[in-house]
Amino acid sequence: MAQLTHPTIKDGWFREINHMWPGQAMTLEVKQVLHHEKSKYQDVLIFESTTYGMVLVLDNVIQCTERDEFSYQEMITNLAMFAHPNPKKVLVIGGGDGGVLREVVKHECVEEATLVDIDEAVIRLSKKYLPGMSVGFQHPKVKVHVEDGFKFLHDRKGDFDVIITDSSDPDGPAESLFQTPYFKLLNDALRDGGVITTQCENVWLHMHIIKEVRKSCQEIFPVAEYGYTTIPTYPGGQIGFMVCCKDGQRDVRKPLRTLSRQEEDELFKYYSKEVHEAAFALPKFAEKALR
Amino acid sequence: MAQLTHPTIKDGWFREINHMWPGQAMTLEVKQVLHHEKSKYQDVLIFESTTYGMVLVLDNVIQCTERDEFSYQEMITNLAMFAHPNPKKVLVIGGGDGGVLREVVKHECVEEATLVDIDEAVIRLSKKYLPGMSVGFQHPKVKVHVEDGFKFLHDRKGDFDVIITDSSDPDGPAESLFQTPYFKLLNDALRDGGVITTQCENVWLHMHIIKEVRKSCQEIFPVAEYGYTTIPTYPGGQIGFMVCCKDGQRDVRKPLRTLSRQEEDELFKYYSKEVHEAAFALPKFAEKALR
Repeated sequence: MAQLTHPTIKDGWFREINHMWPGQAMTLEVKQVLHHEKSKYQDVLIFESTTYGMVLVLDNVIQCTERDEFSYQEMITNLAMFAHPNPKKVLVIGGGDGGVLREVVKHECVEEATLVDIDEAVIRLSKKYLPGMSVGFQHPKVKVHVEDGFKFLHDRKGDFDVIITDSSDPDGPAESLFQTPYFKLLNDALRDGGVITTQCENVWLHMHIIKEVRKSCQEIFPVAEYGYTTIPTYPGGQIGFMVCCKDGQRDVRKPLRTLSRQEEDELFKYYSKEVHEAAFALPKFAEKALR
Repeated sequence: MAQLTHPTIKDGWFREINHMWPGQAMTLEVKQVLHHEKSKYQDVLIFESTTYGMVLVLDNVIQCTERDEFSYQEMITNLAMFAHPNPKKVLVIGGGDGGVLREVVKHECVEEATLVDIDEAVIRLSKKYLPGMSVGFQHPKVKVHVEDGFKFLHDRKGDFDVIITDSSDPDGPAESLFQTPYFKLLNDALRDGGVITTQCENVWLHMHIIKEVRKSCQEIFPVAEYGYTTIPTYPGGQIGFMVCCKDGQRDVRKPLRTLSRQEEDELFKYYSKEVHEAAFALPKFAEKALR
């Protein structure tokens, strides 16, 4: 059988060249390409890297690697989950690799975790190639819908305590998930005191997008704060999140519930109470831009 | 005249392939190569990138780019400077681009800032190609020695309030600057209550080095804390610092002196009181490794 390859791979290295981060590109050495297909929505590539484990790539952009995914999954999930006093019903939009679900069901207060991803290929291939993330699908509290998150939200009013939008970048099928009508739908779908987080790019690369998303969120939510996490395989080495709350008195920058150090040690590789609070201390240039 | 090139540049992109971070490499698109030489100590390359301004590369490793250097320079300098109540005499080991000096002399209490770099080529080329950094050399309080920092320190006893080691990685001419005998020299060269910072790699890539340096520092200094900053063009998107103090009562994780928000805004693009404190909140895996 002929060895699989992909246009992004040259001389044995995957190169993340993209107009969203011109002039710079992360590259990862490829051990072998395991799968490539054009799904109904996007180009899906799975390769094994020499030092970052399995890598999932959508439309030529790294979505996750086995070595550092925990930073993203723990932070996008737990910044929202710990900013809620008692989240019982949780919705994940996107997140077809299952990693966010894995984090959501760590919270024993959760009664139901629903995932809505538009692309069945991501779920199917994650179950095959990314067992450490797709383990999230196996939990009895989890329900999965293969559907457009935007459409799914239209019928939901006051249903959820926390909604996590684990999307790809705004350049592609996830574009609408960065705009005001979507944040309005999220707000309507939340119960009183509900919290959302949404993937929101990197202050070093996309300050203009972050400012726009913040403005849209502030039109809908009384609280909209930007935090970030570090992660080597995302462009520029970090990624941020907008964390919003329906309750104007809530300070989402501090966890409402805290665990013992032993519990934290057992549950997390990145997140802690201290990390939660530090995530919202932005570099001066970003803090100024968001004033 | 033939166009300059360099073995690290292929198809118009500089590639930072290195055994210190196997299987991954940052790449930057090259506009033009401006200078290449083998100095007495290292391979020195200066190129103009398409989106990160001028780039200084030593032994095939990015040292600084004009676009993001302020993060590194402000943080390695100010974590130490603000952890001292009144730094008057400051020493910089390495830092031949001048960026750390630029930050040191922002502190009006400083009476004398001395820089010791082993390689005159770095100073000479930074003055020619990196004016935003080498501006630090022009300040009247600055003295420069082209000399081995290790040797320079042998004659200094109780001379300095703050010593900043702005070195390249431990694989090359800077190797001795990551070892116990060097930290002993630093300690001897400090006045009572003195503070040091030293470049100390990335928790995602070099936890073993960080643990070793921490251990060496703790043998010499009663206080040795690890903090970090984010910076897109360093491997993995961040770099850390060991911050040590002779005074066992000092908490270097909090600034001893604080500025008004207006002063901060005028002086810094990355550093702030909040950023100082957040820099020491490490991801759970790193915090555990350093317990």
